[in-house]
Amino acid sequence: MTEMTDKNVCSETLPCRFPLTGAIEAVQKEIEQRLLSSPPPLRALARHLAKAPGKNIRAYSLLTCAIDKDDLVSYDAIRLAVAIEFLHLATLVHDDVIDDAKTRRGIETIQTKFGKRPAVICGDYLFCMALQAASELEKGDDKSLRQLLPDYMTQICLGEMRQNLNNRNFALTQAQYLKIIAGKTAALFEASFFGGFILSKEDKAKEDQYKKLGHSIGMIFQLTDDCADYEHNCKQTKKPVMSDYEQGVITLPLIYAFKENETLLKKAKMGAPASEIVESVRKSGGLIYTRTVVKRYYKKARKIIDSLDISVQKHRNLSVILDRSVNGIDIGIKETAIK
Amino acid sequence: MTEMTDKNVCSETLPCRFPLTGAIEAVQKEIEQRLLSSPPPLRALARHLAKAPGKNIRAYSLLTCAIDKDDLVSYDAIRLAVAIEFLHLATLVHDDVIDDAKTRRGIETIQTKFGKRPAVICGDYLFCMALQAASELEKGDDKSLRQLLPDYMTQICLGEMRQNLNNRNFALTQAQYLKIIAGKTAALFEASFFGGFILSKEDKAKEDQYKKLGHSIGMIFQLTDDCADYEHNCKQTKKPVMSDYEQGVITLPLIYAFKENETLLKKAKMGAPASEIVESVRKSGGLIYTRTVVKRYYKKARKIIDSLDISVQKHRNLSVILDRSVNGIDIGIKETAIK
Repeated sequence: MTEMTDKNVCSETLPCRFPLTGAIEAVQKEIEQRLLSSPPPLRALARHLAKAPGKNIRAYSLLTCAIDKDDLVSYDAIRLAVAIEFLHLATLVHDDVIDDAKTRRGIETIQTKFGKRPAVICGDYLFCMALQAASELEKGDDKSLRQLLPDYMTQICLGEMRQNLNNRNFALTQAQYLKIIAGKTAALFEASFFGGFILSKEDKAKEDQYKKLGHSIGMIFQLTDDCADYEHNCKQTKKPVMSDYEQGVITLPLIYAFKENETLLKKAKMGAPASEIVESVRKSGGLIYTRTVVKRYYKKARKIIDSLDISVQKHRNLSVILDRSVNGIDIGIKETAIK
Repeated sequence: MTEMTDKNVCSETLPCRFPLTGAIEAVQKEIEQRLLSSPPPLRALARHLAKAPGKNIRAYSLLTCAIDKDDLVSYDAIRLAVAIEFLHLATLVHDDVIDDAKTRRGIETIQTKFGKRPAVICGDYLFCMALQAASELEKGDDKSLRQLLPDYMTQICLGEMRQNLNNRNFALTQAQYLKIIAGKTAALFEASFFGGFILSKEDKAKEDQYKKLGHSIGMIFQLTDDCADYEHNCKQTKKPVMSDYEQGVITLPLIYAFKENETLLKKAKMGAPASEIVESVRKSGGLIYTRTVVKRYYKKARKIIDSLDISVQKHRNLSVILDRSVNGIDIGIKETAIK
């Protein structure tokens, strides 16, 4: 699937390895190609999805973690990164069915354009695409790799279910909320970091460090996203327009605001409009507090990155991922991001 | 997971093997146990499903095909049979979301009891359970086994999608219909037969025979089910009450009746009530014709079973599966079923 360039390192005895830039391009191309060449009954849906590719941040994370001591990644890393992105896409399509979302990544959702039935089937199909890519791994005899997608997919389902069970639960605690997003969002980041680590052939003793790093970065992603939901009244993001609050999704800025301001809790219970709630969350310091939690995860992640015995390039790339996860919000430690 | 009994064959050098009866019991127990011990957010849903276990005909098929020359099956066969049944259950839960079905196996569907969101998530979770069971295989280095679930799951999605695209397509041909059910139903039977075959260590040259056998039996299952839909006005089966016709699902009895009776086609297009259509399908010979198609698949399957160089027990068990697939409908060759 990947073209040979003079930058790829191939030998007669060992499988080819690729520099990071080539590998990420290969992943993007591969995802597009697999979507465009889907079998006829699903082709129109898959082609619609191909129109709005994601940022592939999970693939980039996986490839970065998969970098070996020569700053190269294996073909298996490309395959597994493709699998992770398809898994992510599958969850998005089913999420949009669950949330009755109208748009995603700036285009109509599968459900809006093709209907509920095709959307449920399309999500299942994307799961299959993920599993197919993963089943093609050369290193398929590795049990941790075989169990990676099933195990983390289960974590995602549990997170989604917890979120659903706590819809409009105004008594949700911070601990419960963190558990929800650990499954819903951070699990797939952890899977990417852990999957990349397995393929990097780094010292097995570092496994937990990579898992924790993936978890922390995933938590930062979700927390900053939850902040963004209260920061933009008219959403500039390419996400569905209905706010978390309107959807009954209780996030940390709101949990904090409820604790600080009991009147707000009463108002929410009475069904106060989003505009009023958003304003109060800001005033009560819900966003500032959430940023301090982000900062905690950021520091934990930075400490892990700095502790790893890795090349300058790998260190720089992991730092870039960490910085991107903060998504431009000010947590007061921006300058320490890149060494 | 399986208790040792004096019938199991264990040695110090080889993994344990089990007689068929013990293995099927182990599968049932294992499915129940995994459902009952699901993590809290999904436990109530999984426990609801455990109340109405299926007939496990796919597991039984897989185990039968996995019988080795000593009439025993491996532990991997039990694991893979569990995976196949979870995959089947996942498709049922998503089907019920797609069809807005009220009951399944005589109890409320997950969607009816818990809502659409939990039902979509629960289906995804059951996929994960299937994949987890499959990822535990000892023989995990076998690429055909690794690709089994992703490949056949894809076939199922394609079948479901074709059915959806052809909803209320009164011009559907027999060939198109057969292609739909080949994916929707026969694919999982083929997967069961093929999966069992891989684990049986039978001669690789027989692979295609087992695949074809699974396909034929799956086709018979769906065709007889489609007949049953027109045979019982007040459904005695434990399926949703709305008929295929009312759901816009065009099946072979109706396709044949449309060809024989053009007035019927016009009536259907005008939205004639189910009672009228059902009566006309019977009168125009739609059921008799469908049974001749069943008979064709039956003969093909019988020929394959008789051609296999297998033990008397394996031959008898495959014959039992074939006979059950006809589900008691009279195709005029009942007496030849068991040798």
